[in-house]
Amino acid sequence: MRIGVLGTGVVGRTLASALLRGGHEVRLGSRTADNEAAVAWADSVGGPASEGTFADAAGFGELVINATAGAASLDALEMAGAEQLAGKVLIDVANPLDTSRGMPPTLTVCNDDSLGEQIQRALPDVMVVKTLNTVTAAVMVDPSLVGGTHTIFVAGNHAPAKAQVSELLQELGWPAGCILDLGDITAARGMEMYLPLWLRLWGSLGTAILNVEVRPGESAAG
Amino acid sequence: MRIGVLGTGVVGRTLASALLRGGHEVRLGSRTADNEAAVAWADSVGGPASEGTFADAAGFGELVINATAGAASLDALEMAGAEQLAGKVLIDVANPLDTSRGMPPTLTVCNDDSLGEQIQRALPDVMVVKTLNTVTAAVMVDPSLVGGTHTIFVAGNHAPAKAQVSELLQELGWPAGCILDLGDITAARGMEMYLPLWLRLWGSLGTAILNVEVRPGESAAG
Repeated sequence: MRIGVLGTGVVGRTLASALLRGGHEVRLGSRTADNEAAVAWADSVGGPASEGTFADAAGFGELVINATAGAASLDALEMAGAEQLAGKVLIDVANPLDTSRGMPPTLTVCNDDSLGEQIQRALPDVMVVKTLNTVTAAVMVDPSLVGGTHTIFVAGNHAPAKAQVSELLQELGWPAGCILDLGDITAARGMEMYLPLWLRLWGSLGTAILNVEVRPGESAAG
Repeated sequence: MRIGVLGTGVVGRTLASALLRGGHEVRLGSRTADNEAAVAWADSVGGPASEGTFADAAGFGELVINATAGAASLDALEMAGAEQLAGKVLIDVANPLDTSRGMPPTLTVCNDDSLGEQIQRALPDVMVVKTLNTVTAAVMVDPSLVGGTHTIFVAGNHAPAKAQVSELLQELGWPAGCILDLGDITAARGMEMYLPLWLRLWGSLGTAILNVEVRPGESAAG
């Protein structure tokens, strides 16, 4: 599949490389064409890898991934262009972290709204699926780094889009039984508001290679 | 030990009953003495159980538990009285949920502050330990309801207080290895902001008998 990845940071490049290894054609998009990190990435990975502007990557992809910094995502998606994205699945892996006021970061949006919802509202013709934002980049593409089984969340308003994303997650190594559908895109609130806890887990465990396994009661159902 | 439990809802009564079964003397505190739920509880459980006002319960306890509704906790603790609480460990299990604007609830405080921190600031002579707010009442006092091992968080500024709370958690059935210290009381932000995710997990799994196991990478340390 042709996949456009918006964002040339660690998350974007890690996802782009993994998707390329999985046999996809990947275009990495950034604010400007010939972005140094994007060109270096395309040169180093070889294969059907290319780079361009956000609009180039969005137009190229049959499916598009938002891996930009959350605080800049709405701007980046506006540059990508609603026409380039219309009718497509947009996987949103971003977290709306605000590091401008020091550490720990706060969220630029939370409680009664979320970045995932903001993106869905800004792009009503796009099928936004929030996922992967609850793990670090290395774990996104290699869940085996964390021991045992553990959970990855998906949320979005469009069931077929979530089914397609679930397949892509399985390609990345997430067993189907570990993918937990939290419902519509408003679940992005919970997924993004988990970040402050995740940051404390990182601090306490001394590693960002971590995740949670969600476990219901053994006699669950009521 | 003498324990004062503030709050006569499901959480307060569930904790009070479990602590009583564990051999503690428990006084359940509410806004007014002779609160119907508190009197009925004290009558039904027998043993060294009593009830009274918030101030009665706070004065009675060598250790005090805030199990009031989060949106009312600061008021309740003011009624309990700083003098009654001074020098004691206060376990805060409350979540600052605002259900007044419909479902899903929002948080009355989050992002750059938390209820746990508000309580610690309001009561500087008290050793606040945030814990147990990430599981439903039944799981608080019987973690075996959830299969396998799973994680309970503690946060607070006072190491000896956290050590004492850890012992109490172990009495309630939480293995020492499942108790994860997230650091100072600012970690209450993450613990409380987890609630919107927890509510979606409840919805998706169809049961509130659930928890997460935090799992670091197997070669963790970097």
